[in-house]
Amino acid sequence: MRVALAQLNPTVGDIAGNADLVLEWYGRARDAGADLVAFPELVLSGYPPEDLLLRSHFIEECEAALTRVASSCTGPLAVIGAPVRVAPGRGRALTEPAVANAAAVVGDGRVWAVYKKIHLPNYAVFDEERYFTPGDRVPVVEWGSERFSVNVCEDIWNPGGPTEEAALAGHARLVVNISMSPYHMGKGGERERMLRRRAADAGAFVVYVNGVGGQDELVFDGHSVVAGPDGSLVARGAQFEEQLIVVDLDLSFADIFPGTAVPAGRYHLETVRIDRVDPTTRPARAVAAAAAAGPAPTTAAPAPAGPALGAASSGVEPDAPSRPLLSREAEVYAALRLGVRDYTRKNGFQRVVIGLSGGIDSALTACVAVDALGPTAVTGVTMPSRYSASDTRSDAHILAANLGIDILELPIESIFVPYLETLAPVFAGRAVDVAEENLQARIRGNLLMALSNKFGWLVLTTGNKSEMAVGYATLYGDMAGGFAVIKDVPKTLVYDLARYRNSLDPNLAPIPESTITRPPSAELRPDQTDQDTLPPYEVLDRIVDAYVVRDESVASMVAAGLDREEVERVVRLIDRNEYKRRQAAPGVRITLKAFGKDRRLPITNRYQG
Amino acid sequence: MRVALAQLNPTVGDIAGNADLVLEWYGRARDAGADLVAFPELVLSGYPPEDLLLRSHFIEECEAALTRVASSCTGPLAVIGAPVRVAPGRGRALTEPAVANAAAVVGDGRVWAVYKKIHLPNYAVFDEERYFTPGDRVPVVEWGSERFSVNVCEDIWNPGGPTEEAALAGHARLVVNISMSPYHMGKGGERERMLRRRAADAGAFVVYVNGVGGQDELVFDGHSVVAGPDGSLVARGAQFEEQLIVVDLDLSFADIFPGTAVPAGRYHLETVRIDRVDPTTRPARAVAAAAAAGPAPTTAAPAPAGPALGAASSGVEPDAPSRPLLSREAEVYAALRLGVRDYTRKNGFQRVVIGLSGGIDSALTACVAVDALGPTAVTGVTMPSRYSASDTRSDAHILAANLGIDILELPIESIFVPYLETLAPVFAGRAVDVAEENLQARIRGNLLMALSNKFGWLVLTTGNKSEMAVGYATLYGDMAGGFAVIKDVPKTLVYDLARYRNSLDPNLAPIPESTITRPPSAELRPDQTDQDTLPPYEVLDRIVDAYVVRDESVASMVAAGLDREEVERVVRLIDRNEYKRRQAAPGVRITLKAFGKDRRLPITNRYQG
Repeated sequence: MRVALAQLNPTVGDIAGNADLVLEWYGRARDAGADLVAFPELVLSGYPPEDLLLRSHFIEECEAALTRVASSCTGPLAVIGAPVRVAPGRGRALTEPAVANAAAVVGDGRVWAVYKKIHLPNYAVFDEERYFTPGDRVPVVEWGSERFSVNVCEDIWNPGGPTEEAALAGHARLVVNISMSPYHMGKGGERERMLRRRAADAGAFVVYVNGVGGQDELVFDGHSVVAGPDGSLVARGAQFEEQLIVVDLDLSFADIFPGTAVPAGRYHLETVRIDRVDPTTRPARAVAAAAAAGPAPTTAAPAPAGPALGAASSGVEPDAPSRPLLSREAEVYAALRLGVRDYTRKNGFQRVVIGLSGGIDSALTACVAVDALGPTAVTGVTMPSRYSASDTRSDAHILAANLGIDILELPIESIFVPYLETLAPVFAGRAVDVAEENLQARIRGNLLMALSNKFGWLVLTTGNKSEMAVGYATLYGDMAGGFAVIKDVPKTLVYDLARYRNSLDPNLAPIPESTITRPPSAELRPDQTDQDTLPPYEVLDRIVDAYVVRDESVASMVAAGLDREEVERVVRLIDRNEYKRRQAAPGVRITLKAFGKDRRLPITNRYQG
Repeated sequence: MRVALAQLNPTVGDIAGNADLVLEWYGRARDAGADLVAFPELVLSGYPPEDLLLRSHFIEECEAALTRVASSCTGPLAVIGAPVRVAPGRGRALTEPAVANAAAVVGDGRVWAVYKKIHLPNYAVFDEERYFTPGDRVPVVEWGSERFSVNVCEDIWNPGGPTEEAALAGHARLVVNISMSPYHMGKGGERERMLRRRAADAGAFVVYVNGVGGQDELVFDGHSVVAGPDGSLVARGAQFEEQLIVVDLDLSFADIFPGTAVPAGRYHLETVRIDRVDPTTRPARAVAAAAAAGPAPTTAAPAPAGPALGAASSGVEPDAPSRPLLSREAEVYAALRLGVRDYTRKNGFQRVVIGLSGGIDSALTACVAVDALGPTAVTGVTMPSRYSASDTRSDAHILAANLGIDILELPIESIFVPYLETLAPVFAGRAVDVAEENLQARIRGNLLMALSNKFGWLVLTTGNKSEMAVGYATLYGDMAGGFAVIKDVPKTLVYDLARYRNSLDPNLAPIPESTITRPPSAELRPDQTDQDTLPPYEVLDRIVDAYVVRDESVASMVAAGLDREEVERVVRLIDRNEYKRRQAAPGVRITLKAFGKDRRLPITNRYQG
């Protein structure tokens, strides 16, 4: 059977546009001779549609789009994700969702089967119990001599879930999973290992298609996977790029590798017979080769990609090897770039503007923006003050020249002085403190927003995760802007990414070496450096990771060797700055737990530890 | 049986403080001769604790506090809400909560029974499926000759739920429900009708205790209720105030009114026998009187309060009548006042600062702040510009004088000019537009934040819901601040509340009449009024209510008689300003759907309608 994985980039809410995109890629898959083509989860609505799902007319329009698409699917079978109406659910809350997260099997203008997602993620960034009622049936589609099943995203992450059940009890030889699986560092490799394990346990082929693109805080990284019934990697899609992946699978190999799991009998299997032309029989090169590569990996080490029939989106390139996995820095950088590109374009902006301080955070942000949008779409602004050193100012200009972007210089002194004069009678007798520091940051925020309002440019903010954690950023000042590119990147990783980006252009490294080596400073008072008031970033980032990402207690951090006083001080800072983060712009999630909808803490909160 | 309802105000995260509060009120209930005292849902953690519930050490501390409290409960039995650890739940997601939302029945240093909330709300502002695994058992406690059951909040909202089951199949004559039920307009009356219906259906007494207080966006309105087995109202607690309510109930009346529902057999009943001194037998005046008042109300009309043994928190006042329900304006005003008071105090602020424009929004905000915190805790700031009319300026000063608050005047012209000069080379050849308007609003925001930073004052913002909807507010300008008092109050209701507040002091109405009658204007350009660019507020508020609160489509709004062009324009404005609202301060929720965690829409969103 020739199977196509449509690793594409839908847009939330653009139902008609997404349907057109599906039909365009369907046409490409048909031209490539596919028997079956799989599209990502909720491809017609985009993912996640959030509270759009509470509007009945939105669901109706998605259903109408599904009908329209199905009527045009006269070639290969297609598996298409869409929200569909169902009877309300479990009666456990007063307001029950009457919508399912569905995978429809369509062809010849008909909807042959509708799978409704059973395992609904409702943790981390996911709120699917808010929107969906779970399904309770697993269809096994009989098509000629083939049997396959489908399920949706989270369903396949559950060991002993519908995948194994469909294969072991329902005799499906292929399980298609449609996903929109958001990225975090290392997730692609983890996902790949999970899918190979699941295929081996089920003794079936697993075709896993994941979407691509940025949606507010989330980035979807593609990296679709085809795994063989022996746990081999048959094909791996590109990371962070759209791609049509075409593979030929000889499903009879599923009879050779019978699977190792035991069906749990937790699901209601339903056989659906498709009364249409049988799938073409194709040569089984890919599988034969992959199967020869040996048994399923049992360790956590990254699996080598087996030979496969991977194909670029421009058409079928039989025997094209799967690409190697990106390095940690390349992966994160690609996520940031895609996040910036899609937030900017999908929200209708043509240009972005960035305050360039001469420091490493704004330098990295500018590199990402230029790589995402091109140099002509980026304007840098330096806004020197009485405390700006000449070398940081010149670093900003060097960076702009290296990147080929426009740069404006707007000194803030002439604005800062009348603020101080206006406030002088009220501030009389008080020492200079953070009030005067924040005034400067807010003048800069105001200037950037004035440029944004006048020219329609999107302001990109430049704060990193370590700063956002401890509140080392000025609300309405350097936090002012529409998209916070590196807000989930800890400072130590900012350095790694800056060096990585410089390494790509050995002849013209964009970020000046002095920007990387100078001690970080906000330059809001004389001779200030971050380390005056914060622990070294290596220590700070360890605490942030333990407290924010892993929800560890002070006691456990101290037990792990961190200094109690330092831990308590940082934890207190993190807690006290929740109100600032609540008013921060969204930014790209790259860790297992980002500030934003991933971490929902009360502002009013007396808990310590 | 004498039952006390501890309608108190816990603080999220303050486990030790909440436990002390519980013991203090337990002592008062014991002194009042209570046999049983009920505390609100999750009283030990505060509600909602949000992602604190993901920290295992937080749950352990709550459990330890429950043990400590139980060991001190040597008088009456107590029903206490707390999160407790359980085995993970339903296996429907990869990460399953291992915590239950529990009501523990404690006495004599023992935990006699633990009910785990079965119906978990996961809609609107609720995310309980994120945190809790549902229980599946309903305990019926046998205590001497009495039988009672307990459940938690949402459980009692479900018709045919655990309340009826415990009464009709388990023969409980009293069902205690512990709640933290957040306020919206009219909810108290709705809740009261529901509880009387539930009691009548179950043929049992219902004792419903709700907490009081503000927590970020939410306000809990108290208004605890005791309903008789005939559907009568036995007692009603105060709205928006702490109160210990003590009632004497003759549970044998439950045998006279057998209930009208049919047990559904959906729940697993468990009998728990309490092996301790029997509850004191008390005279049954209240119930006898209430029962004589007739059958349960079947219409939606507000029920008259029957005579009851209501008691103020200072002690028992037998036969004290329940208070009448507050008017719509009094109710909303009380919610705003409590929200401001608790956000300010629980976050450790002593004073607040408000920009006074002379307009109605800032005037109402200042009244609420003064009524919440007292005049010495409030500073007003006028920040006139070249576009400020002299009558609006004088209105601000009159308001401040009427309220007895300090007022500062900080003109912005001398700051505005150098901004324009700095930007002149970049803006050359461009028309004056919203960029220059927003500059002024942001100068004001910057000045207020400078005061906040220098003196530790909380900035209260003054935008209303109509403005927040259509983006008629400047991000980092008038939106800058920690708490947005009236952000969920539509402009038409702002007028009603202003007149209501003025009516309370007929001799010294604080808000100048000219502030109420002058056409609203942002005063950011010459001769500007809101109605230049917006429909009349009566129309705008209808559209906001239909689109935001009730998720109606454009088509249905047009079918209801609204002008299509106007609807489409407003809907587009609402959609396009999602990014601003995402960076807004929290404020008090008073409608069925507020901006904030109640309405979760993507920023990147191409859906229209």
